[in-house]
Amino acid sequence: MSDAMKGVKVLDLSRVLAGPYCAAIFADMGAEVLKVEEPGRGDEARMLRPFSGGESAYYITFNRGKKGVTLNLKKGKDLFLRLVGDADILVENFRPGVMERLGLGYEALREINPGLVYVAISGYGQTGPNRLLPGYDPIAQAMSGICSVTGWPDADPVRCGAPVGDVLAGLNAAIGALAALRHRDLTGQGQLVDIALVDSSVSALSSLTQVYLSEGRVPARQGNGTEAAAPGGSCHAADGVVVFAAGNDRMWPKLCEVMGRPELATDPRFVSNAQRVQHREELAALVDDWASAFTVAEVVDKLRSAGLPAGPVLTIDQVVADPHLAGARDMFVTVDHPIAGPVRITNSAIKMSLTPPKARISSPTLGEHNNEIYQASLGLTENEINALAADGVI
Amino acid sequence: MSDAMKGVKVLDLSRVLAGPYCAAIFADMGAEVLKVEEPGRGDEARMLRPFSGGESAYYITFNRGKKGVTLNLKKGKDLFLRLVGDADILVENFRPGVMERLGLGYEALREINPGLVYVAISGYGQTGPNRLLPGYDPIAQAMSGICSVTGWPDADPVRCGAPVGDVLAGLNAAIGALAALRHRDLTGQGQLVDIALVDSSVSALSSLTQVYLSEGRVPARQGNGTEAAAPGGSCHAADGVVVFAAGNDRMWPKLCEVMGRPELATDPRFVSNAQRVQHREELAALVDDWASAFTVAEVVDKLRSAGLPAGPVLTIDQVVADPHLAGARDMFVTVDHPIAGPVRITNSAIKMSLTPPKARISSPTLGEHNNEIYQASLGLTENEINALAADGVI
Repeated sequence: MSDAMKGVKVLDLSRVLAGPYCAAIFADMGAEVLKVEEPGRGDEARMLRPFSGGESAYYITFNRGKKGVTLNLKKGKDLFLRLVGDADILVENFRPGVMERLGLGYEALREINPGLVYVAISGYGQTGPNRLLPGYDPIAQAMSGICSVTGWPDADPVRCGAPVGDVLAGLNAAIGALAALRHRDLTGQGQLVDIALVDSSVSALSSLTQVYLSEGRVPARQGNGTEAAAPGGSCHAADGVVVFAAGNDRMWPKLCEVMGRPELATDPRFVSNAQRVQHREELAALVDDWASAFTVAEVVDKLRSAGLPAGPVLTIDQVVADPHLAGARDMFVTVDHPIAGPVRITNSAIKMSLTPPKARISSPTLGEHNNEIYQASLGLTENEINALAADGVI
Repeated sequence: MSDAMKGVKVLDLSRVLAGPYCAAIFADMGAEVLKVEEPGRGDEARMLRPFSGGESAYYITFNRGKKGVTLNLKKGKDLFLRLVGDADILVENFRPGVMERLGLGYEALREINPGLVYVAISGYGQTGPNRLLPGYDPIAQAMSGICSVTGWPDADPVRCGAPVGDVLAGLNAAIGALAALRHRDLTGQGQLVDIALVDSSVSALSSLTQVYLSEGRVPARQGNGTEAAAPGGSCHAADGVVVFAAGNDRMWPKLCEVMGRPELATDPRFVSNAQRVQHREELAALVDDWASAFTVAEVVDKLRSAGLPAGPVLTIDQVVADPHLAGARDMFVTVDHPIAGPVRITNSAIKMSLTPPKARISSPTLGEHNNEIYQASLGLTENEINALAADGVI
């Protein structure tokens, strides 16, 4: 087995989630990812829960497979520029303007390395009136419209519990970087990839946004259902919640059979989807009434046996133990951390037959690879390295 | 301006959302994407709301920039294999096994074209016990754990209103394809990229999953807040909801100042984050009490002026009119559809300085490019094309 990004050198200056998530994809694909962190402190994620063996497992999961050096970007600017000279991709998620003020913005770095692919991830992007606002995942979800369509119709808007603003941005950044790398390989020219959390969330919402753009209706919160079809969404089994779909005219009679109520299929209240949408609350009560006599596993099994899409609402302990996800899909792997020991983390979702991405080794401790990188890659002596450390440069 | 994927040939056999979203990214990047659809019927998204000028704008938004041919994969297998011979990437999101039963699975197609990057997107992936189950976005969200952590603590689990199961899969598929294309360019060898909606959602949840993997606690629904910090999440202004963060020891005194209650910063109930988390409901009531005297715009402005992350919960009509997103970020563009006329859709979230991706032209009508592709690319005569159409092959 080989690696799709073997030999690609990535400088990861990013912190917390979106940037590290992007660079972790490259590490999973075999790129040489060098995490560059502030001396003495490092990525603030090193302080974030949860912890394994005294180490932040939050940091471990998003920085697996990377090497780590410390470097103060002000005092160690020359050293940093030497690292840039040799890099293919740089990932940062500072607030726009921070790298420019350090003299390390894209325009400055392209002078050093015209082929550099510079990936900047921020809350609102490098342009526009909101660019300097602090960007956090929940605010990106709120300002993209995601919160407005998430939750139950009779309750407040709510964010997606997964940090999708961050993750969608990290994924878009990885796509932009790989496309830019392709262009660089063909032309020698690097470029700036400018990714915003809010833009990424807006793109994820495009099917709902289209309802407003095309028909002028503002989509509202629909819980687990949709405004377009009934019944569907979620129902209540004796021991939990089941998500299912049975809204179209092909599925609805199957559900009637499963429920042992074939006569409902021809009931005038429910005979067409338009009728069913009008009577959605009666339908939800009917389905709940049936489902409540069975367990989640039984309801899911009965619906699936009839060819209806259905699944349990799994809690995270159940997901981690799921024989499909933890088995054939290999979605959880154990990496060996130098201090914390073995730590089980989430694996790559990108499965490839010839160059399989994989979380392989753990994250670096702070400055773990200072000697290796500064000696072997930049040719510094041990004395020079010690002096840089004493001066707080590394 | 050039295009990062200029000259890359993509066959898009996919339907509805995850696959078309992936292939639309390639189209935005200038790849030659050929959408291959069932004669007479096409992608079932052609029937999905919303509509613009009688055409599905759902279809338009996810199939912009593609050319379209019709082809029955059974009757027209030979024609299809000729298209495959010339392709760089194939995207499909049939249920696993469908392409194999047609004799068109990856193992068969690599015989025709060893360099082909074959992207298969499905609910559960090509392997494992769940592989043959129908996969829908809400069920992927439910079975990944996303629903279990989305919503309010006192209400049912709920899905993210944006179809993130589909979109995350489409993005992971694009990353896998671009990485595989890089490997193909270096070695000549294509491969299978196997992407599951559920895997992709599991990966997006990794920071929460880590809480269970490292500390054994099952993350619960937290509304817009987090279990780790208070105050924060959302508060109620006079005319709507504001999302904000003020939970750490640096931010909390700032919020006290903004609220005109500096004495709260040293109140023993709230003096540390641990104390504040214990008194989170009192804090939420205090913040609401303050915020309710102002509009959303005023609350956001006051919080941001103090350096606190904050933003309004925008509805989709507001997002589309937002001067930042609709202005500098160019997140909405108009494409010209041959039948529907101008249709405003959501643009790419991937902003690149040298090869900017963009939704440029509209989606194809069903079989719009049959003559062009079958004549110019495959060398068929007009008579042959008419005969194929009469036989239901195209």
